[in-house]
Amino acid sequence: MSDTLDRSHDPARRSWEPSGVRHPDFPIQNLPFAGTPGGVVVAIGEMALPIAAALEAGWGRGLGLDPAEFATPFLNRYLLTTGPAEWRALRLALSDALADPAERDRLAPLLVPHAALELLPAVTTRDYSDFYASIHHATNVGSMFRPDNPLLPNYKWIPIGYHGRASTLVPDGTPIRRPSGQTRAGDAAVPTVGPSQALDYELELGLVLGGQNAVGVPVPADRALERIFGVVLLNDWSARDIQSWEYQPLGPFLAKSFATTVGPWLVTRDALRPYQVAMPARPAGDPDPLPYLSVPDDHTWSIELEVRLRSAAMRARDEAAARLSRVNFRDAMYWSPGQLVTHHASGGCALAAGDLLGTGTISGPDPEARGCLLELTWRGRDPIALPDGSARRFLDDGDELALVGHATAPGHPPLGFGPCRGVITAA
Amino acid sequence: MSDTLDRSHDPARRSWEPSGVRHPDFPIQNLPFAGTPGGVVVAIGEMALPIAAALEAGWGRGLGLDPAEFATPFLNRYLLTTGPAEWRALRLALSDALADPAERDRLAPLLVPHAALELLPAVTTRDYSDFYASIHHATNVGSMFRPDNPLLPNYKWIPIGYHGRASTLVPDGTPIRRPSGQTRAGDAAVPTVGPSQALDYELELGLVLGGQNAVGVPVPADRALERIFGVVLLNDWSARDIQSWEYQPLGPFLAKSFATTVGPWLVTRDALRPYQVAMPARPAGDPDPLPYLSVPDDHTWSIELEVRLRSAAMRARDEAAARLSRVNFRDAMYWSPGQLVTHHASGGCALAAGDLLGTGTISGPDPEARGCLLELTWRGRDPIALPDGSARRFLDDGDELALVGHATAPGHPPLGFGPCRGVITAA
Repeated sequence: MSDTLDRSHDPARRSWEPSGVRHPDFPIQNLPFAGTPGGVVVAIGEMALPIAAALEAGWGRGLGLDPAEFATPFLNRYLLTTGPAEWRALRLALSDALADPAERDRLAPLLVPHAALELLPAVTTRDYSDFYASIHHATNVGSMFRPDNPLLPNYKWIPIGYHGRASTLVPDGTPIRRPSGQTRAGDAAVPTVGPSQALDYELELGLVLGGQNAVGVPVPADRALERIFGVVLLNDWSARDIQSWEYQPLGPFLAKSFATTVGPWLVTRDALRPYQVAMPARPAGDPDPLPYLSVPDDHTWSIELEVRLRSAAMRARDEAAARLSRVNFRDAMYWSPGQLVTHHASGGCALAAGDLLGTGTISGPDPEARGCLLELTWRGRDPIALPDGSARRFLDDGDELALVGHATAPGHPPLGFGPCRGVITAA
Repeated sequence: MSDTLDRSHDPARRSWEPSGVRHPDFPIQNLPFAGTPGGVVVAIGEMALPIAAALEAGWGRGLGLDPAEFATPFLNRYLLTTGPAEWRALRLALSDALADPAERDRLAPLLVPHAALELLPAVTTRDYSDFYASIHHATNVGSMFRPDNPLLPNYKWIPIGYHGRASTLVPDGTPIRRPSGQTRAGDAAVPTVGPSQALDYELELGLVLGGQNAVGVPVPADRALERIFGVVLLNDWSARDIQSWEYQPLGPFLAKSFATTVGPWLVTRDALRPYQVAMPARPAGDPDPLPYLSVPDDHTWSIELEVRLRSAAMRARDEAAARLSRVNFRDAMYWSPGQLVTHHASGGCALAAGDLLGTGTISGPDPEARGCLLELTWRGRDPIALPDGSARRFLDDGDELALVGHATAPGHPPLGFGPCRGVITAA
C-alpha cells in the first residue's frame, strides 16, 4: 500500500539538528532537495546536507547509491535510474540518520547553512509543459474575453496544456528583465513594439518527474502517480499584452518565453503523503473523467500558497510585503496531478526524468484566491492599492515577487517550499 | 562580406572520392553533417568521413579543433563554442582535403559508406519550436475553419510560432506509432478516445542554431543569420482530429507531441550560399515588416521539396512511391529564416546551440504545392488516389512517407538533404 505513512512522517520525530526543529519550512518531516553547483543537498532546518559527502563519509551503505550521482548539480540521473521504492528508501534513510543522535558526529560536520549556498532547481529540465488545470482561473480569464461563454467546450473533458520554454527556466532569485514585444492597443490598425505594459506573475506548482516512458508508449492511469517525484513552486511570468496579440491560433509563445522561475526546494511526493486530500467534487452535471483519466486513489495536496509583493520603495523602507494572492491548491484544480501525467503521455509523448509539468495558474473560488494580476485586477480595471501608496494594474520595475507555499494537514507540521522570488528590472 | 562564395562553392570542384562526383545528393559542394553513436560525420558521395578520426589522423591541424568534440554523437558543443568564422573555416578545410588527391592516402581509409551507419540528427535539441511561416498554409488551413476570415489579424505582423516537444524528436526511419487521443466528432455531445483517424504529415524545414544568447538578451536582426548553422528536413507528424478538439485556447499539444522526424543530414548555411534567393515580394497593401524584423541582406533559399508515399501494398509489390506534395521553399514563406530567429529572441528568449526552429508546413500557391494531407484533401473532402488503387484522406497504417529536398541554383549542382522517412505502425 504505497500511501501508508512510515516513521519518516511521524509528527513527533525530531532531528538532532536544532534548526530542524524550529525552522518553519524544513522540519525533519520535509527533507526537500535542491541542486547546487557542487552537488545535490537536502534541507534540514536552516542547514543543508550534501548527499554525496554523506555517502562518502560512510552513511547509507545499504542504499547501494553511487556518490557520484549526487555530486553533480542535478538529480536527473538518479531519477532516471531509480523509482518510487528507491526514492522512499532514500527518504527513510535520511530521516533515520537525521533523527539518530549516533549519526550526529558523522553528519553534523558536513552540514552547510543553505543561506550560504547557491541553490539551483534540483533537476535540469529538457521539456517543460504547462497546464490550465484550475477551473477558476480558466473561468475568470475566459470571462474577460468571452463573457457569454467563458469555458470552452473541451475544458471539462481534457486537461488543456501546451509546451513551454525550457531554456528560460531560471532559479529562484534571478532578476526578471521586462520583455519587449509586439502589442496592439485595442483595435489599433498597426501594432507597436516596446516594453510590455502588462507584466504579470502566475502562481503555479510544478510537478517534477522521474523515470522515462519511451516515445509512443503511454503512461496508464494506474502508473501515473509513480512518475511524480515531487513538487516545486513555479512562477510563469507572463506579458499579457504580448500574449493577447500573438496567441491565436497556436497559443502563447514569447509572452511566456522570457523567464519562468523555479522555486529552490523540491518537496517530494513521499513527504506530501500526509497532506494528500481528495480532489474537489465535480459540480453536478459535469461529466465524469473519461476512463483513461480515472487515476486510482486519485488525490491532490493541501498546500497553502501566497504571493507577496514588495515594491522598490517598500524595500528601501524595509516595509513588509503586501499579500496579493492567497489560495489553497486543494480548492483550485479541476484536474489532478495524476491526471495531468497520464493525459500528457496518452498519445505516446515521452516524459523523462527532470521534466517539469506546470499546473497552470492556481486560482480558487474567492476573489483573494486569484493567482495572477490579470484576474486580481480584472485585466487592469480594478487596480490594487499597495502600502506604499502606489497602485498596481500589472508589475512595475523594481517590484519583488515572492511565491511561498506550505503543505498543511491536521496533526502534521507544515512543510515549506522556500520562497520563489524575482525582482523586475527595466527592459 | 559573409555572403561571398569561396572555392568550396566552385561548381567545377571535384572530389577524389568517386562517389562524391556521381551521388546526386552529396557532391563536394554539399558536405552536410550527421551524428552517429561513434561521432559526427560529414557526407561525401556515398561515403561518410568521421571528423574525429580525420583530426586524429593529422588532418586539419590549423583549425585548432579538439577531436573529442567530434567523437560525441552530436555537434552541440562545437556549435556552442564556435561561430560562423570557425564553421566556414571547417567547411573550407574539409572541401580542400576532399578535393586534394594528396589527402587521399590519409582520409580514404577512414571513409565509411553512410548506408552502413546509424545516422542520427547532427545535434541533440533541448528546445524545439515550430512556426507557421507559410502564408499559403495558413490561408488554406484558416479557410477550412474560418471561410470568411482565413488569416487572423496578427499574421502579417508577427511570425506566429509555438513551442514543440523535444522529447519526441526522432531520427530518420523511426517507425511512427499512430497516436490515440480524445477526439470529438462534429458536434457530438461526448468525445471519444481511440486511435487518430486523421494522421497527417507536415513538410517542413528545420533551422539548426549555433551559439547562445543569454536569458533576457535579444538577437538583433543584424545578428540573426549568424545564429543559423544549417537546415534539416523535418516531418511534424500531426493528428488532425486530436488537434481540432484540444487546441483551444492554448494551441497544439498532444496532436503533435507523439513524434517529429528529423532528417539525417544537416546542410550548412555556408553550403546554401549559392542557393540564396530574395524573399517573395509581399502583396501590394501588405505592411512592411516592423523595424525589429528588418533583417539586413534577408533571404530564403531555393530548395525543391517533395513528399512521397508508399503504402504497404506498394512496398510489397516494390512499386515506386507516389508523389503527394511538391513545392519550392522559396515560394512558400511569408517570413524569412532570419526573421524567425530574431523574432523568437526579441523578448529575451534564450536560443541555444542545437535548438531547432521548424518553419511550419511549407505550402506554395499551387494545389500540388500543399505540404500536408489536411490541405491536399481539403480536410478529407477530396481523397487522393494512389497507384495501388486505394485512396487517402489521411495516412493509413503501413504507409511509408519520405520527405526529400534539394537546393537548386543555375550553374550549381543540386545539394540533397537525404530522405526523411517514417512508416506508420498501428496504434
